[in-house]
Amino acid sequence: MRATRFFISTLKEAPADAEIVSHKLMMRAGMIKRLGSGIYNYMPMGLRVIRKVENIVREEMNRSNAIEMLMPVVQPAELWQETGRWDKMGPELMRVKDRHGREYAIQPTSEEVITDVVRSEIKSYRQLPLNFYHIQTKFRDERRPRFGLMRGREFTMKDAYSFDRNVDGLKQSYQVMFDAYTRIFTRFGLEFRAVAADNGAIGGSGSHEFHVIADTGEDAIVYCPSSDYAANMEAAEAVAPSGERAAASAALTKTATPGKAKCEDVAELLAIPLTSTVKSIVLTVETEEKGALHKQVWLLLLRGDHELNEIKVSKIPGLANNRFATEDEIVEHFGTRPGYLGPINTSLPVKIVADRTVAMMSDFVCGANEADFHFTGANWGRDLPEAQVADLRNVVAGDASPDGKGVLAIQRGIEVGHVFQLGTSYSESMKATFLDENGKPQFLQMGCYGIGVTRILGAAIEQNFDDKGIIWPTAIAPFEVVLCPMGMDKSEAVKEQVESLYAALLAAGVDVILDDRGQRPGAMFADWELIGVPHRIVIGDRGLKDGMLEYQGRRDTEATAVAVPDMLSFILAKLAGK
Amino acid sequence: MRATRFFISTLKEAPADAEIVSHKLMMRAGMIKRLGSGIYNYMPMGLRVIRKVENIVREEMNRSNAIEMLMPVVQPAELWQETGRWDKMGPELMRVKDRHGREYAIQPTSEEVITDVVRSEIKSYRQLPLNFYHIQTKFRDERRPRFGLMRGREFTMKDAYSFDRNVDGLKQSYQVMFDAYTRIFTRFGLEFRAVAADNGAIGGSGSHEFHVIADTGEDAIVYCPSSDYAANMEAAEAVAPSGERAAASAALTKTATPGKAKCEDVAELLAIPLTSTVKSIVLTVETEEKGALHKQVWLLLLRGDHELNEIKVSKIPGLANNRFATEDEIVEHFGTRPGYLGPINTSLPVKIVADRTVAMMSDFVCGANEADFHFTGANWGRDLPEAQVADLRNVVAGDASPDGKGVLAIQRGIEVGHVFQLGTSYSESMKATFLDENGKPQFLQMGCYGIGVTRILGAAIEQNFDDKGIIWPTAIAPFEVVLCPMGMDKSEAVKEQVESLYAALLAAGVDVILDDRGQRPGAMFADWELIGVPHRIVIGDRGLKDGMLEYQGRRDTEATAVAVPDMLSFILAKLAGK
Repeated sequence: MRATRFFISTLKEAPADAEIVSHKLMMRAGMIKRLGSGIYNYMPMGLRVIRKVENIVREEMNRSNAIEMLMPVVQPAELWQETGRWDKMGPELMRVKDRHGREYAIQPTSEEVITDVVRSEIKSYRQLPLNFYHIQTKFRDERRPRFGLMRGREFTMKDAYSFDRNVDGLKQSYQVMFDAYTRIFTRFGLEFRAVAADNGAIGGSGSHEFHVIADTGEDAIVYCPSSDYAANMEAAEAVAPSGERAAASAALTKTATPGKAKCEDVAELLAIPLTSTVKSIVLTVETEEKGALHKQVWLLLLRGDHELNEIKVSKIPGLANNRFATEDEIVEHFGTRPGYLGPINTSLPVKIVADRTVAMMSDFVCGANEADFHFTGANWGRDLPEAQVADLRNVVAGDASPDGKGVLAIQRGIEVGHVFQLGTSYSESMKATFLDENGKPQFLQMGCYGIGVTRILGAAIEQNFDDKGIIWPTAIAPFEVVLCPMGMDKSEAVKEQVESLYAALLAAGVDVILDDRGQRPGAMFADWELIGVPHRIVIGDRGLKDGMLEYQGRRDTEATAVAVPDMLSFILAKLAGK
Repeated sequence: MRATRFFISTLKEAPADAEIVSHKLMMRAGMIKRLGSGIYNYMPMGLRVIRKVENIVREEMNRSNAIEMLMPVVQPAELWQETGRWDKMGPELMRVKDRHGREYAIQPTSEEVITDVVRSEIKSYRQLPLNFYHIQTKFRDERRPRFGLMRGREFTMKDAYSFDRNVDGLKQSYQVMFDAYTRIFTRFGLEFRAVAADNGAIGGSGSHEFHVIADTGEDAIVYCPSSDYAANMEAAEAVAPSGERAAASAALTKTATPGKAKCEDVAELLAIPLTSTVKSIVLTVETEEKGALHKQVWLLLLRGDHELNEIKVSKIPGLANNRFATEDEIVEHFGTRPGYLGPINTSLPVKIVADRTVAMMSDFVCGANEADFHFTGANWGRDLPEAQVADLRNVVAGDASPDGKGVLAIQRGIEVGHVFQLGTSYSESMKATFLDENGKPQFLQMGCYGIGVTRILGAAIEQNFDDKGIIWPTAIAPFEVVLCPMGMDKSEAVKEQVESLYAALLAAGVDVILDDRGQRPGAMFADWELIGVPHRIVIGDRGLKDGMLEYQGRRDTEATAVAVPDMLSFILAKLAGK
């Protein structure tokens, strides 16, 4: 490609509404252009990256025997009503009426449509397993679109759906996709991690997220550096501390802690470690029984330095539909307002659940259910009955790994892929069955597998940039190599050399752009550093008089002189990762 | 590709709602699957054809220095309001509100968005010319979607937009696109014709449609077999008959024609040719002048066997906003009801326009403005004043070609492409300017260029099918070659031969499918004839014992025996069109 036949549009400054680095750099590099809130034009430079991402995804999906098709953007409401998602999904689901008043969804995902296709196409177990995928425009009406392609409203996604005869088959199909995703993210050239995930609201069992590692990532991901354990924060298990609970050594003492409602303040006042304190979280669950509203108040106990994990809490029997208790409910059950609550001497009985760590504590400090007072020296079994124990908290760095093979570390990630065992949730609600070997109808076992194609661009940049701009991995760079001639219009030698190298690179199948715009070197270099092309060759009279060209990798701090006849093989070796 | 790793789903019968052959065959061949009215899933077999069409389009657009980008499906209403199309477009424009109540269009086309992009990107004449294109999903809420992909609601289209400094530049950009389209449709392997078109409601001047020729096409296209003149019916000019008008030879005579309101019936009653009769069409134009409604009645005269061309009529000064006159208006002006109207002796004055052919008639028959009476022997200048003359009618086969090089013929076509000189209509309404050499702002000269990607599939089939199924041109066939082994699971020789040929074809870059489903020959052949793969190779023990394979082209009536070692070069020659 010649730059004069392409469209290059760079900006010195990012627009004010660009908050994060990938958004700023994509705007400045002319990769995207805002059309509306969370809606972007993909400019020619950005589209090249998208196509490279799509092609890698497509190749690896095909290699895994997934079959490409294309499902529509505008999907009839009836299918979404069959699964109940028409009502369950909130305003994120963009809805539209046609001229006859019929309702449609602008698709955010295609479980309903693929299940509709498959239930009419699949008759027999002999047709299984099957895996269909498509790469399509999607829309999610985010309440607050932001961060460019990271949380846009219109975006491109690859979604695949597998269909199997039984759970074993599903697990196999899932593993095939897991492996394909591992190849895909490896080929992108991005540092990533697959982490066990909660199976969430979508139903089913078994799920992994693929995260691109980046300090700016909005998700915390948990891993064990000495084993292959990895999970997202929602799913990472906090195991019980090892060993026995220490024996009580202090007496239960009501201690004045005036104005110290937080564990941190109490610890400071009493000059004890925060890890000796216990904090109280009060939840309410309302259920309707025979038309009457029944209200149950729960007290959850966490060590003072730990954080509640709401996903884990919602899985405790009886706590699925909890909410935080109101102040009135708290006063009614504890006899005091929040800040001094604890498990001892509540006004009314409450159900108590202690986190695994709290259940192993002795001589701990907790609220006394009286304003401005805490108990010190509290001990299980002696001062209060042993409570129900559960994993209630987020793990922290240094926690023991659940696989027993070391301690956990935490890093930030950006979720770009998700594989999910759906089971029969969709096939049951949409009556998608096949006939098994005995001629009996069975529900199809489904899996779903997504990759946020346009989101990859944002994530790749969050991981790979410097103060000059983007640093694309070669596999998804808009161009692999840029040729920068110095004074092409003035020097015949430069013109000849750059044209011959350009032709040789094209012939070798290299995705090269020749910057023939005639810009000054400073502006030209700044453009390509901003755009992030990974390999740059400078052709100038100064080097040519010694028969040399200049190579510089985007991460290199200095240029390398390469003799003219060696440059082609030098670049091919670079592109081959040598 | 192995058939067992692909998804093949054929039907014996087409669904009842499939009305035309391409729709029926695409449904039966498992290329598309209906999701809703005018909305289809593109199944794996159909998507392969779409991708081949897209790739040819993309290659030729790139070759023409058009630059690919991607504009969104969901577009803010504000831009559509700037050009007035938000109001002008009827319910065909699908409109949607987001969670904040803001309005958006589901794009049917992207003139507004590209003009918005360009007005902020283009500052100077030095950046011009430019041509941007995208291949994107579009939606048009047709009142009555039908004919499968021919008149669907959701469809894929390539649309390109050129930007130039002046009309000369626009004309050059237009010609480049015209030539690209010619290459594209030639590469598809379809019989097509580019025809001059009316510039329609979109504004601007200069337009051609590209039609795929098919007897079932819904458009009549006009061409001259002995020259390169071609136009669609709206635009084809009906020239005046050559020579002089014959002198009057009969007297004007009021003749009783009781109950004969139509020219055909009058001609039959009077035993004269239909070409001696003149029919009357009455139009009304209402204009508001200084708050008062002014009404003008027009009488258009056509030869009895000719048809009115409404596009031509609307271009006559004063007739832009015409409607058919009401019966009351007719009675008021002509003193009689429709059926016996004519230009002689009207009750009130009307403006008369004679078609070019009518203006050359003498001794003609027309209504006498009295029920059950016609005039015979009517003559211009003698019985009524010479009237305003214009081209009012559709051409018919045998009319003189406007280029004077022969006579016109008419064939049926399916419009699949359209190139259009928009001029400054969009740039003016959206204030898209550039600075010229003198630093003065000028409006951008725009062109737009569309190809209905998914519609190509329907049109290709309407042109190429037989009673067995589809006959794809090789360039856009889902597979170029199908290998049909006879008893692959029983014969080691067949298995060995088919695998070796399959590997050789893949290595030669042939897009081949190996049908390893183990079906009976009859069913297998029927599937591939229905799907329309252009080249078939049968591998069976019967031929192999003589060292032979069987080749049959999809249009061949008989198979050709080809020696095993010759088959690869034989097929490569076929694919090269030899």
